[in-house]
Amino acid sequence: MLGKTKTLCLLAICLLADSAQSLATPPNLNNLEPRQEPRYKAVAAIAQKRRNDALNAFMPMPAVNQTELGNDVRPYLLTSGLLSKDEIKIIKLDAKALVRKMRNQALTSVQVTTAFCKATVIAQNLTNCVTEVLFKEALERAKFLDEHLNRTGEPLGPLHGLPISLKDTFVTPSHPSSIGFAAFANEPTANKSVIVDMLENLGAVLYVKTNVPTAMLMGETINNVWGETVNPIHKKLTPGGSSGGEGAIGAMRASPLGVGTDVGGSIRIPSAYTHLYGLKPSLGRFPTWGAKPAIAGQDIIYSVSGPMSHSLEAVKLFAEAVLSEEAAPWTLDPKMNPMPWRRRVLPDGAKLKFGILPCNDGIVTCHPPVERALKITAKALKDAGHEVVDWAPVNPQGVEALTTQVFTLTGSDAVLPLLKAYDEPLLGVLKLLFPGGETVPQLTPAKLRELIINRNQLQKDNLDQWRATGVDGVIAPANVPAAARLQMDPQKVYGGFTGFGNVMDLTGCTFPVTYADKNLDPKRGSDWVPNGLRDEFVQSDYDPVFWDGAPVGLQVIGQRLEEEKVLEMTEIIANAVQFKDRVYG
Amino acid sequence: MLGKTKTLCLLAICLLADSAQSLATPPNLNNLEPRQEPRYKAVAAIAQKRRNDALNAFMPMPAVNQTELGNDVRPYLLTSGLLSKDEIKIIKLDAKALVRKMRNQALTSVQVTTAFCKATVIAQNLTNCVTEVLFKEALERAKFLDEHLNRTGEPLGPLHGLPISLKDTFVTPSHPSSIGFAAFANEPTANKSVIVDMLENLGAVLYVKTNVPTAMLMGETINNVWGETVNPIHKKLTPGGSSGGEGAIGAMRASPLGVGTDVGGSIRIPSAYTHLYGLKPSLGRFPTWGAKPAIAGQDIIYSVSGPMSHSLEAVKLFAEAVLSEEAAPWTLDPKMNPMPWRRRVLPDGAKLKFGILPCNDGIVTCHPPVERALKITAKALKDAGHEVVDWAPVNPQGVEALTTQVFTLTGSDAVLPLLKAYDEPLLGVLKLLFPGGETVPQLTPAKLRELIINRNQLQKDNLDQWRATGVDGVIAPANVPAAARLQMDPQKVYGGFTGFGNVMDLTGCTFPVTYADKNLDPKRGSDWVPNGLRDEFVQSDYDPVFWDGAPVGLQVIGQRLEEEKVLEMTEIIANAVQFKDRVYG
Repeated sequence: MLGKTKTLCLLAICLLADSAQSLATPPNLNNLEPRQEPRYKAVAAIAQKRRNDALNAFMPMPAVNQTELGNDVRPYLLTSGLLSKDEIKIIKLDAKALVRKMRNQALTSVQVTTAFCKATVIAQNLTNCVTEVLFKEALERAKFLDEHLNRTGEPLGPLHGLPISLKDTFVTPSHPSSIGFAAFANEPTANKSVIVDMLENLGAVLYVKTNVPTAMLMGETINNVWGETVNPIHKKLTPGGSSGGEGAIGAMRASPLGVGTDVGGSIRIPSAYTHLYGLKPSLGRFPTWGAKPAIAGQDIIYSVSGPMSHSLEAVKLFAEAVLSEEAAPWTLDPKMNPMPWRRRVLPDGAKLKFGILPCNDGIVTCHPPVERALKITAKALKDAGHEVVDWAPVNPQGVEALTTQVFTLTGSDAVLPLLKAYDEPLLGVLKLLFPGGETVPQLTPAKLRELIINRNQLQKDNLDQWRATGVDGVIAPANVPAAARLQMDPQKVYGGFTGFGNVMDLTGCTFPVTYADKNLDPKRGSDWVPNGLRDEFVQSDYDPVFWDGAPVGLQVIGQRLEEEKVLEMTEIIANAVQFKDRVYG
Repeated sequence: MLGKTKTLCLLAICLLADSAQSLATPPNLNNLEPRQEPRYKAVAAIAQKRRNDALNAFMPMPAVNQTELGNDVRPYLLTSGLLSKDEIKIIKLDAKALVRKMRNQALTSVQVTTAFCKATVIAQNLTNCVTEVLFKEALERAKFLDEHLNRTGEPLGPLHGLPISLKDTFVTPSHPSSIGFAAFANEPTANKSVIVDMLENLGAVLYVKTNVPTAMLMGETINNVWGETVNPIHKKLTPGGSSGGEGAIGAMRASPLGVGTDVGGSIRIPSAYTHLYGLKPSLGRFPTWGAKPAIAGQDIIYSVSGPMSHSLEAVKLFAEAVLSEEAAPWTLDPKMNPMPWRRRVLPDGAKLKFGILPCNDGIVTCHPPVERALKITAKALKDAGHEVVDWAPVNPQGVEALTTQVFTLTGSDAVLPLLKAYDEPLLGVLKLLFPGGETVPQLTPAKLRELIINRNQLQKDNLDQWRATGVDGVIAPANVPAAARLQMDPQKVYGGFTGFGNVMDLTGCTFPVTYADKNLDPKRGSDWVPNGLRDEFVQSDYDPVFWDGAPVGLQVIGQRLEEEKVLEMTEIIANAVQFKDRVYG
């Protein structure tokens, strides 16, 4: 296994030289029978041409010489001259400030939308984060909103004029929602997702959809249609997944606010990997109705949607707008609870009790940069007067086993036939979820019920532990590395640090902490005792020089349906940690 | 099919002569191979002896000559001389008044508990509603509560001293929770249900558990362990199911407040059949954790728990106590939402818009007494100034198909092996759910996902219709007959009037309306056009003379998680309808 892994890693590194431009055709990793021309290739070419033509029509862009860029490619946006000074000013504002300026008519929505569309062209060229380009309708919409405000003197809603990017899963007819499948890559859609409709009614401008991994079931962003998305803060790393396109575009500041989904960490992994705030709610707050699902009807571990942004204020703005009494998503999506957003659920100056999940959860041990981030956060919270205690996760083995079984047993017959129809090779962790690409055709009722009983017991055990320990929130890694390598070895994937939040339907929000540092984060020494071979194997990947400069984020987990408290805790943590972005400050 | 049905009905009527005492050994309806002694019989005898000994030890009771009683057996409680005048006064008080008097020390919990225990002995003899007898610990508990109040001057909680009865599914260690299975009939239990723990902490006295049908999957109450429970308001009828024991004991006034569960109508059918108020919540309000499930891990249609009582004030008392910030069930049961009970969600004097579900939902037509109850209620609401509109249910065919498939596909391997182990014949509607008693051993993942997709679509369609029609609540039948015959023909069972509330996870509460009346409710005439053969067959059962005097109740359905509004609507309806009980006024 180790031999094969090394080969894959070498392959991944070799591919980095021309990453963004050519990654649409990754190597066939699945050792399928060689074909003259696998069917997905023609389909992918059509989809990519549609995207590229739309981007080029808006703003042609010179080829970027990757070798002239550092690992952190973001400065290019500011220095390339492709954006005007005014546009750069717009890009630097957060969503709340943008809306304020548009409401005051200090900026128009056309100006703002244009700036973010231009930034998106650059982001696509640097990170390959875009799937569907909605610029044309976005600019028409922006014009309409500007005229509406001019005419009536009233903004259209709390998100008046604000460009918002969407994970590819959200349906904006007639654009396809390929969710990483060739089968859907060029298929027009008809019915808007509820959140799309809501955001428009709240005044937003939807201007781009972003890349995901095949079937949205990986912690990285790679598929056979659009290729691999790259982390703009460290181009040798993935922006995570499955909402990795949102991670990349957000970190590039080409989106002030995006919407992702999370069934195993898909908001939190990319958000932590790209220094974004990403809110993962419990089932029942933000609508997912009408989003294109990878495994439609998989209802054992809930897929939820939530906002992602470099600005915590933007995340709050989204939550307040979408969960207002007026917007009332519970009248549109039958899974939503009639629970309007509440402001200030914590008393001013509250002193809280935080649990800290150890960087070794008993299965694997995080890389040293993540361990340091935990220490930074714990110290900052203590210094701010909060109580900080160790907090062991409930049954990580059970969480991992359940998650794998649920996706394998319920998903293989949803995912594999779609891939086979277009000769698509299995990528990344899908090779482990669906070994040999074989469909699991049967499920016994007893097995199904066992999965649900196990899930419920994990939820109960977690609730009991939460009550017994009396913590307000739990600070946890989002994943093992600061951000994973591109084309990560699936054997090194571990989703348990986010997965328990999904199995137990908890709330969580990520926050940026620091950057990996080759001097501060040396390899673990000979005194380190791994949990076992797997832990050793995962840790062996760590290389302080390779990861130097990688973004490091963490998450704070709250109890079920505590989204308001989680965002307020995130604010407390952010104020304590005082993270400074190297490009944007 | 009609020939067999007639035979079964005849059989049912013949059995009524000595109903309560001998119904523990119903005929083998399943045409199994004859055995010398099916294993369940010995087990049932042990369980019944345990129950009967406990009841007799508390209050020996003379044999009741059923022929001297009318169809409404309730007056016996008041006239038999088995209860003292003071005890009868206690029985006549509702839960709220009882708690007030105990808090004021005008009554002791021992006095109150003793009165309800005595009433329970009578209720058992008349209706066969009891499974487990908890009198001994209840009286010890009552004594403790009295002493606590004497000593501290403080009641123990909002339910201080109040006797509460429990559906057999709730676990009160070490008493068995047989839930109608011989396999569990004498099996001691170890872990309290969360609601049991909560009610005790709130000051309640748990004194008895009540009968259910096999596997709690029928709208009647019959099983091979305890036999059949009888409706005390009309002894030829069932009190419904699956919380039928609660229906019977509540209608007898041998319980001031009980707790049932509902996965297809199991709170609402028995409550409507026995003139009780029964609140069916959405998932997430009242704890079910640790209740003994029939199909553990069946999570497609949610089983929920809720209060049942002849007093709407008692139902409110339960809701307010269990959902207080202090009781906080969301810290104990991981499925509960952090949504404390809210009082007065409707403005004073609110004029509401009610939808009326037609007595013919397109599949079957209710019997004439139920149709009259709908008309009474609609007129009363109009007279009180509310708007009343027709409201067609969403896709009743889809609801019925889904419900049957879910229970059959997920339940057969949970239910049938338990029955086979004790040679138990399949009773009632179980014969249709599990044809031939055959286990369905496999489920394809695609089928599972299809069921969930269908369920979700039904929920969405219902939500859309609710929004489009703008109704506050929907008045609906609980079932086809006022209350069904004992040992009802399963071919005549139709659960759609309650089932849509479960599939769509809605809220609902029953309320009493009237009594069937042979003069007011004649058979449908030749002008009636049935929906088809099934409708005609179901309707053919109706006999105005047989049903004369039967209780008729209805339900009001609210949207998901609108429990507070539903109880306030129920109060508005009750005030409009002004139902008078024939025995208690």
